[in-house]
Amino acid sequence: MEAFIAAAEAAAELAGAVIRPLFRSPLLVEAKGDASPVTEADRGAERAIRALLAERFPAHGIWGEEYGPDRADAEYLWVLDPIDGTRAFVTGRPLFGTLIALLHRGRPVLGLIDQPGIGERWIGVAGQPTRFRSPLGGTPRCRPCGRLAEAELSCTSPEMFEPQDRPGFERLRAAARRVTWGGDCYAYGLMALGLVDVIAESTMKPWDWAALVPVVEGAGGRVTGWKGEALTLESDGRVLAVGDPALLPEATRLLAG
Amino acid sequence: MEAFIAAAEAAAELAGAVIRPLFRSPLLVEAKGDASPVTEADRGAERAIRALLAERFPAHGIWGEEYGPDRADAEYLWVLDPIDGTRAFVTGRPLFGTLIALLHRGRPVLGLIDQPGIGERWIGVAGQPTRFRSPLGGTPRCRPCGRLAEAELSCTSPEMFEPQDRPGFERLRAAARRVTWGGDCYAYGLMALGLVDVIAESTMKPWDWAALVPVVEGAGGRVTGWKGEALTLESDGRVLAVGDPALLPEATRLLAG
Repeated sequence: MEAFIAAAEAAAELAGAVIRPLFRSPLLVEAKGDASPVTEADRGAERAIRALLAERFPAHGIWGEEYGPDRADAEYLWVLDPIDGTRAFVTGRPLFGTLIALLHRGRPVLGLIDQPGIGERWIGVAGQPTRFRSPLGGTPRCRPCGRLAEAELSCTSPEMFEPQDRPGFERLRAAARRVTWGGDCYAYGLMALGLVDVIAESTMKPWDWAALVPVVEGAGGRVTGWKGEALTLESDGRVLAVGDPALLPEATRLLAG
Repeated sequence: MEAFIAAAEAAAELAGAVIRPLFRSPLLVEAKGDASPVTEADRGAERAIRALLAERFPAHGIWGEEYGPDRADAEYLWVLDPIDGTRAFVTGRPLFGTLIALLHRGRPVLGLIDQPGIGERWIGVAGQPTRFRSPLGGTPRCRPCGRLAEAELSCTSPEMFEPQDRPGFERLRAAARRVTWGGDCYAYGLMALGLVDVIAESTMKPWDWAALVPVVEGAGGRVTGWKGEALTLESDGRVLAVGDPALLPEATRLLAG
């Protein structure tokens, strides 16, 4: 596992070196929200990550958002999103992240969230305590929160839901103490620091959630589908994360209606 | 003016020294979203800022969110919010800010936005180009954007509007290219970096908007009420900011209905 962690960290460094020069750059300002310069950064970062992983682990599969799957049926599969949080990136918010996950027979065993602007990194490994480093501080441990009425809810955007997902999310929102919008992968990182208690999102792809599972679970939380089931590569894109597993029954009940 | 700028910077340093130790601290994690530790940081920071300004400019007035107005009818009035973006602060997002403004006969002539975690600072002075420093980079100049259909819209939260403000905001949102939620004062800073084109918010107090006016306008944008009128201490709390003044007619028309 240490070799996998070292590779994920080295890959994140390469991705950061591609991504940082574009963040808040004149090129991005001139693009006025057009995602094409981001797509270029995304692709360049993914190529760099894939080349490193393919060289170190030629038998492993790789599945990235930009270039798709390669040996997706391998025992070990790397799942990548070089820039998670495109809207945050194009509007200059340092809350986007590079996501690198390693799945073993479909189960995430390693997850890395990297914020290359601020220089923050979360590393989660199945069965180990989550590691975190940041110039802003923070301790990687979810906090106790047994009732939704006390819970800080986070969600990237009210526009992310399919119509059939909205009533469930609305019930959860009404029961939570408060909602904060925005965040993408960063909100799951904040959950692993004990600052966010519940997140419910939908239309999530494997590269959006795979890295988050070991990070949150290694800090004491849980990341599941909306029914509390384990996430798999065949999941329906609905993701529920709780900092305190005691919140799961109430949250899944409200999401199901 | 240089003495005023130096005082605002010194005050922001004092506020940052009070605020930084609490950000993501165990005290805040344990409070589980209860704002009282934030209120303590807010108050401590405001006391530090007020003491410095009162000593340097005994004839000036001061109006802060926590301790209210003192000589609010003075020719020069400092208007403060030590922690703008309480929800961002309590959930660990480094997008809150310390806001320090100086008004001369009711008109903002100096505005400072400070993000003490990352170490970013915007300084706007009436009639001067906005200054900006940040380890993350960025150039303090709004970008051209002549049509709402091309505009990045930003807004802190869909929950911030009074019922009577919602239809106007919804028309604006429907016309904009895209909306990103979250941000508080930070979104106005991003507008001054050419990364956000339009912001419409309501229920804003003078300490929420006063510092933003010189920052955005010194970068080429405009900050007004929803009718395009200049903001005053008697304004109704509805704030419209555009990076390109050419957006004002279309935006005010949609907000008015």
